[in-house]
Amino acid sequence: MAQNKVVGPEIERLIQLLARLPGLGPRSARRAALQLIKKKEQLLVPLAEAMGVAVAKVGVCDTCGTVDTTNPCAICADPKRDRSVLVVVEDVADLWALERAAAINAPYHVLGGTLSPLDGVGPEDLNIESLVERCRSGEVAEVILAINATVEGQTTAHYIMDRLTGLDVNVTRLAHGVPVGGELDYLDEGTLAQALKARTRV
Amino acid sequence: MAQNKVVGPEIERLIQLLARLPGLGPRSARRAALQLIKKKEQLLVPLAEAMGVAVAKVGVCDTCGTVDTTNPCAICADPKRDRSVLVVVEDVADLWALERAAAINAPYHVLGGTLSPLDGVGPEDLNIESLVERCRSGEVAEVILAINATVEGQTTAHYIMDRLTGLDVNVTRLAHGVPVGGELDYLDEGTLAQALKARTRV
Ligand SMILES: [Zn+2]
Ligand SMILES: [Zn+2]
Repeated sequence: MAQNKVVGPEIERLIQLLARLPGLGPRSARRAALQLIKKKEQLLVPLAEAMGVAVAKVGVCDTCGTVDTTNPCAICADPKRDRSVLVVVEDVADLWALERAAAINAPYHVLGGTLSPLDGVGPEDLNIESLVERCRSGEVAEVILAINATVEGQTTAHYIMDRLTGLDVNVTRLAHGVPVGGELDYLDEGTLAQALKARTRV
Repeated sequence: MAQNKVVGPEIERLIQLLARLPGLGPRSARRAALQLIKKKEQLLVPLAEAMGVAVAKVGVCDTCGTVDTTNPCAICADPKRDRSVLVVVEDVADLWALERAAAINAPYHVLGGTLSPLDGVGPEDLNIESLVERCRSGEVAEVILAINATVEGQTTAHYIMDRLTGLDVNVTRLAHGVPVGGELDYLDEGTLAQALKARTRV
């Protein structure tokens, strides 16, 4: 590739790594790299530092499975959260989306994906055992399944309901404000808030 | 903003810096940050390192004005380039686009922008004086103005032609394969190659 000859391998590597970010293709990665280099002091230096800090400090919360710079995470450590409720999400992105909606003030449980037998994802690959454990503690009265309205999401929700049978918890799901087949992370905050408010018992 | 409460300020800062990259908005910046954190060893660590290297090594070539990890840059230092030709571009992105087209094997001169009196950009804000100097050396027989077909680009081209009057250089421009009003960096490589091949004398 001609590109290798005209910029040093260090810049080429920067472009290739940027191209692996979601939302950036090869062309926009080149533009991003150039922007970074041109705005070295205002953008490249702070971003390199921020990434270094993230490398050093970011990890997974042992309690809920989200990512944060502390363990337990800021949410799990927050004494003002209503611990009688537990919001189950597929992914950290969904947790962030719900927090942006600011519609509920409870802790979360991040599954880390959905059941997908075809892709070889079974219950043991998700944070389901630890969810059952949290529900056994007696502190949790309601588990809200804030799971995508996709086939895999609903399969996972059914599996979780089965696993929680016999425990003293009410299992609810988001109201049908969530478009069928849609993903939480793309919804506007008002829709998310409504769906939470109108949640139904299953 | 609710976001500040749920992720540590370090992650929030990473998201905000990523959102300043071209091609990434606030939402895709969050997704990019999450992807980086999830793929810490495969993506975040190498990208943080690549940025650190860029911070330490990348600079502007004193000869042509492009960015590279060496000074003079790899192109200016390349003994196989035809130094009787000099390709003048507005921006490093245009230089990269021409190199990807692999249509010419000559050194470049990066202006660093276009004349724009309304924005207060005059000849002294661009690398025009150093271009005239390079043309005075006697080594350059042809100056190819590979400048965007925009109003500002053409104004800049005319100004450069005036400044090179009386020097023993032929000034050419790219053929009209370049769409009027279009920008070089968005053209496909075949069009760029054709435009270079059919360049005309001005
Ligand atoms: Zn947590
Ligand atoms: Zn150079």
